Amino acid sequence: MTQVSIPDRLAYLLVSSDGSASLVLCSLETRLVRGQTDLSEIVEYTEFVDNPAAVLANVLRERDLDSGRLGIEARRLSLTDAEFLRSELPSLELVALDEEIERSQSVKERHEIDSLGYAAQSTRASILEGAEAATIGTTERELCAQIMSRVMERGGIPTFVVFGSGPRSLETHSEPIDKELTEGEIWRIDAGARFDGVFNSDLARTGVVGPPQPRQTEVLQALRATQTAGFNVVEPGRPASEVFRAVEAEFDSQGLPFFMPHVGHGLGIGLHEAPMLQPANDTPLQAGMVLCIEPMVQLPDENECYHVEDLVEVTEDGIRNLSEPQDALIQIG
Amino acid sequence: MTQVSIPDRLAYLLVSSDGSASLVLCSLETRLVRGQTDLSEIVEYTEFVDNPAAVLANVLRERDLDSGRLGIEARRLSLTDAEFLRSELPSLELVALDEEIERSQSVKERHEIDSLGYAAQSTRASILEGAEAATIGTTERELCAQIMSRVMERGGIPTFVVFGSGPRSLETHSEPIDKELTEGEIWRIDAGARFDGVFNSDLARTGVVGPPQPRQTEVLQALRATQTAGFNVVEPGRPASEVFRAVEAEFDSQGLPFFMPHVGHGLGIGLHEAPMLQPANDTPLQAGMVLCIEPMVQLPDENECYHVEDLVEVTEDGIRNLSEPQDALIQIG
Repeated sequence: MTQVSIPDRLAYLLVSSDGSASLVLCSLETRLVRGQTDLSEIVEYTEFVDNPAAVLANVLRERDLDSGRLGIEARRLSLTDAEFLRSELPSLELVALDEEIERSQSVKERHEIDSLGYAAQSTRASILEGAEAATIGTTERELCAQIMSRVMERGGIPTFVVFGSGPRSLETHSEPIDKELTEGEIWRIDAGARFDGVFNSDLARTGVVGPPQPRQTEVLQALRATQTAGFNVVEPGRPASEVFRAVEAEFDSQGLPFFMPHVGHGLGIGLHEAPMLQPANDTPLQAGMVLCIEPMVQLPDENECYHVEDLVEVTEDGIRNLSEPQDALIQIG
Repeated sequence: MTQVSIPDRLAYLLVSSDGSASLVLCSLETRLVRGQTDLSEIVEYTEFVDNPAAVLANVLRERDLDSGRLGIEARRLSLTDAEFLRSELPSLELVALDEEIERSQSVKERHEIDSLGYAAQSTRASILEGAEAATIGTTERELCAQIMSRVMERGGIPTFVVFGSGPRSLETHSEPIDKELTEGEIWRIDAGARFDGVFNSDLARTGVVGPPQPRQTEVLQALRATQTAGFNVVEPGRPASEVFRAVEAEFDSQGLPFFMPHVGHGLGIGLHEAPMLQPANDTPLQAGMVLCIEPMVQLPDENECYHVEDLVEVTEDGIRNLSEPQDALIQIG
């Protein structure tokens, strides 16, 4: 939680090639982290008294790892701390290992997949129950409060809530406001929470206020067909980019405008993890990856945006759905 | 929201000495950001197609800012992008300006203080209402769901929820679990949300299940005295460290054990902003700063932790309370 909310309160995990690991951690977190991990070595620092990078440098010296090559997440290491380490440990070479670390995180263990599946199903069920409890005239905020309180009762801590009804659905990341749901409007939610402290959910659904028009039902079905096209090409060995291309091609077949830079992503302790389902990513899919597949269509002339997002596990012979995809617009009122 | 949830989706703000500004932004965010700012220049990049640092380098070239000195937030700039900028623009010197930027952010404008005050009061009221609706036997999760749904109805998007009852109150950052509130237990909440998309709340309260024991009431009053001691020394010109020392000294007077590395912090678009109220910080307080003052006492022998946190504005002659400090344990049941 702290790593998300207070990013300046640093933690460093050091892993040796023999598999042993040390965690440099703010002393305020020790009690909690001991209950969450089986790491044998936790090296505490006192916030504002110690420089966490200096504590890390000491650990490297004590473990005779202060020369040679140190793999780092260069996209996460700050320039400040990189320069500190270079000046303190001039014989140490920092080598960017971002892609290797991302790749190793992208294949999940069974218990991680189970937790991510529980998170996805809980979020899905909460959206349906919250919508069930709402009526025409409920505000965006009231609806989202109902949904997210159900997420919390199921053990999630909300991390984000994107919601828009009517023309507001077109804003990629609009948050709920004090606006009433009005008959005929499309509404869109994309929300997530952390479960068991670390496992994210990320799920999107599209609904309508009052009975849907036939045109609205058709758009939802067409969008769902693009998601299914994505599901259908997932299998171990296929490059991630093929999922992107399958979804893109189905947008074309369905006559829907396509603008997305990606059509989905991995999910885990981060909200967007590898593999990103984007056109330049040739990472081969592997069994044990989990993927959010989330086509979205913006129809500015109709003042509407439709979005569905579901979680699947990559298995030896295709996919396993970890959330049940949407079969119809969710009707309120 | 994206900057918190998807930190890899970078944005760069470039400000010239003449005050003009350019924002390098993922194209998915443009529509939203145009509605939130009056920045004249937004330079879009397409995610996964463009490297945001390369787009920034082009903006620097176009504005003839590709040589000389560029002030940066070195604690926020990744090693990857710093090295890219240095290799692309070898005549440009990167100069760490973290403290200067923090300092300029620490003094708020009136509308920012008003928004932060609304966020604090909304969070405070939601905690009281949620506790009012709970009874002995309500679970930690149910209580927190009630509280945070009220926060959402008031316009907040939850950012964190720390909750612990009984012995769990001792964990600095425990999250609510499926445990019933049991008579005689102390419970502690420290929660926050973002309002208006950007302004954080961060407020802590301590309660009891069933009628408090006299000892429990005394501990709360003693802890409140340490918070008041902090309030009393706040005035423009005083170093931030004096607030720390005043709180620490009152812990001693009250006979409470003291372990805190800081006793509070600034609050704004970040959860912990300057000035940190810690012993080595000699930054002078200024009118227009807002401070969370949050003494916490851990009593492991009693299996209890007490925590109060409130927001004040630094004014010309002292403080203005932006949330009403706690006067008694919040009783459930």
